[in-house]
Amino acid sequence: MHAKYWDPEIETLSRGELSKIQLRLLKHTIHSAYEHSPYYNRALRGSNFSPSDVASLDDVRRLPFIDKKFERERQEAAPPFGDHIAVAADKIVRIHTSSGTTGRPTASVFTKNDIEIWKESMARQFWAVGMRPGDVYHHALNMSLFVGGLCLLGAERLGASAIPAGVMDTSRHLMIIKTFRPKFIWGTPSFVLHLAEKAREEGTEPSELSIRKVIVAGEPGGSVPSTKRRMEAAWGADCYDYYGIADIWAPCATECEEKAGLHLLEDYVLPEVIDPETGEGVAEGERGELVLTTLRREGQIMLRFRTGDETCYELDRCACGRTHMRLMGITGRTDDLVIAKGVKFYPSQVEEVLRGFHELRDEYQIAVCRGGDYLDEVTVRVESLGGDEKIRDALERELRSVIGIRFNVELLKPGTLPRTLHKAKRVTDMRKIEAV
Amino acid sequence: MHAKYWDPEIETLSRGELSKIQLRLLKHTIHSAYEHSPYYNRALRGSNFSPSDVASLDDVRRLPFIDKKFERERQEAAPPFGDHIAVAADKIVRIHTSSGTTGRPTASVFTKNDIEIWKESMARQFWAVGMRPGDVYHHALNMSLFVGGLCLLGAERLGASAIPAGVMDTSRHLMIIKTFRPKFIWGTPSFVLHLAEKAREEGTEPSELSIRKVIVAGEPGGSVPSTKRRMEAAWGADCYDYYGIADIWAPCATECEEKAGLHLLEDYVLPEVIDPETGEGVAEGERGELVLTTLRREGQIMLRFRTGDETCYELDRCACGRTHMRLMGITGRTDDLVIAKGVKFYPSQVEEVLRGFHELRDEYQIAVCRGGDYLDEVTVRVESLGGDEKIRDALERELRSVIGIRFNVELLKPGTLPRTLHKAKRVTDMRKIEAV
Repeated sequence: MHAKYWDPEIETLSRGELSKIQLRLLKHTIHSAYEHSPYYNRALRGSNFSPSDVASLDDVRRLPFIDKKFERERQEAAPPFGDHIAVAADKIVRIHTSSGTTGRPTASVFTKNDIEIWKESMARQFWAVGMRPGDVYHHALNMSLFVGGLCLLGAERLGASAIPAGVMDTSRHLMIIKTFRPKFIWGTPSFVLHLAEKAREEGTEPSELSIRKVIVAGEPGGSVPSTKRRMEAAWGADCYDYYGIADIWAPCATECEEKAGLHLLEDYVLPEVIDPETGEGVAEGERGELVLTTLRREGQIMLRFRTGDETCYELDRCACGRTHMRLMGITGRTDDLVIAKGVKFYPSQVEEVLRGFHELRDEYQIAVCRGGDYLDEVTVRVESLGGDEKIRDALERELRSVIGIRFNVELLKPGTLPRTLHKAKRVTDMRKIEAV
Repeated sequence: MHAKYWDPEIETLSRGELSKIQLRLLKHTIHSAYEHSPYYNRALRGSNFSPSDVASLDDVRRLPFIDKKFERERQEAAPPFGDHIAVAADKIVRIHTSSGTTGRPTASVFTKNDIEIWKESMARQFWAVGMRPGDVYHHALNMSLFVGGLCLLGAERLGASAIPAGVMDTSRHLMIIKTFRPKFIWGTPSFVLHLAEKAREEGTEPSELSIRKVIVAGEPGGSVPSTKRRMEAAWGADCYDYYGIADIWAPCATECEEKAGLHLLEDYVLPEVIDPETGEGVAEGERGELVLTTLRREGQIMLRFRTGDETCYELDRCACGRTHMRLMGITGRTDDLVIAKGVKFYPSQVEEVLRGFHELRDEYQIAVCRGGDYLDEVTVRVESLGGDEKIRDALERELRSVIGIRFNVELLKPGTLPRTLHKAKRVTDMRKIEAV
């Protein structure tokens, strides 16, 4: 019989005790940034902030926000890693970068100690979704550059058997799953649904395969209730949402077996949830932008990083017994908010509507363009299995009712839309292209 | 100033001292196989071989050979890992497999201890090619399933900065190299040459990039002198051949900075070089098939595995001071030996001839088919930059002179042949298809 928690002492701390640990780590982090990062040293001196000023967790609010743009600027000013880095370059043992063939890739760098802590925190998160020594785990995240790619090392730390599948031909994934019978899979929501579809095409009901636990990350799907239900039904499995962000730390938050929000590793990152416009903290239960400060990272210290991810939090003890903050879904990015016809909406809201229609398949696209009359036109493309006329009408009605504007719906033959093995790009905003 | 060796005590042992260590490890290995592997227990009992019979390294010769076919059979008999495995399935923390979408994938499995030893041995090999803490390393081996994919963890162990590039768009590789200025790259010979070609197409002379050390594996190119010279000239770098084999252990042998053969990690694997027909050992300096016995692997013990790889060995102390056996090139596989028109040759022999022609580009293919008169026809397809008529004649003459049979040469426009990002498939034997 295995223990209930990977690290019971830390995971079930009272909020007060947890805060004490966070304060100790925050002091250490700010002190280290001041001492070892040329950028933070200048910035902290410039605002007359001394590391010894940190008396409570609230003092972090005296620091300015940083964001993705800040990171790129620092890396351009002091290539290749940026002068916010708090160790010498020769202490860096791993370089992950953003993707893309043009533009400067953004680096996320790790020291030996960072890697050890990464594996340890990842093992804790895998344990929380029910992984135990001896379980077989199919790792279907992109392993090239992607910061989540090597998270399988956390499964090894835990003592599970990890299959480094990565991104490859979908039939190969299925062949491997049939041979080694993994209980766990981790992929993007679009890939997990695509793999189920492919299994059916090959004549296998995915729920008859060995998968019983699905972990998803990289897209908001795991926080869209109907998408999650669809993944669970397809695989006959429990589905857990996962949240990581390269700029901060790969393993940030994951659902536990209660599936009641994503537990943030509060002894690794200090969270704030803010109003994206005012920068002020919002109350428990209110939606806002997640801001994170690294508490243990050695190489790349990030103080008050605006993630661009929208969430809300709860602090009460989860039914699982863990006390760390729960993020009640990552429902969108503050910067992929679509504003069309004067109305704001997230792609995940459209997704939620689509999932209510059993005649539709999983892939979809949203295209926004400016019509001949200079008014916005929003088109949703989705694959349908038949009965088009009626479904189109019902779907347009439902979208208008939920989001408040008129959508054009285009129903396509199954298999028409591109399948992505990594993160799906759902929204195309043609207005931005025309505006040049 | 760094030390000359990663592990001086082991790497420079006298042959006599090394043999003592090997004997101790061999006894332990055979004892463990007997105790923990159902297959080996039956096999050893069946041949009245008791672990206590092992008195010298020569006693290994009393054991039967095993090979790839044996491995597949054991895994089919006791799925999924086979009963030659000497640990319980719940001790396995990593599963690498062969590729392919059809047919049963062959597993290579690792315990926690296997992974630790893997990283340690890999660090030693990286050190031998000159890698030091702080060096930046671009890892361009396939990371999906491939057993070499996670060898970058050895660079981390050493203290270098590893970029987990894997297989991705070639332009992205170049962008990453330009940004992070790695000194080291590891890929297949075909990919390393392809990347140089791509850099030139994009207007960059590869030798002006930061790469100064190229490690190659997966194909015989690193042991083909002219191909190696071509890679070194393209990158303005030293090139080191590397040898690993999933069935045994990822890190087996690598060239040191003297580039005088590949040092086999003799405290990890016990080598024999045999006549592939008689199974008897061949003398130092004679060509034969490499046979390996694992000495430290815990999960997957392999006793006398026939690798199918052709090499010859030297035992004298290398100019670098290391004493472990050197493999004087891996020049082909005993099982990809081409027999056409009654003559045996290796694709690497054709490659060596092609490399003498500066008008030719790097990719080539060999096709063997049976002509209308039932005689073999061998065609070499290669890309040429111009002056075709004259080159074709000279090339056909040279191939006939070196290998002894007539080749048809087809010269193609540059860019015609497929580029592979992983291992290139050079030989197509159409006779095998017709024979069905």
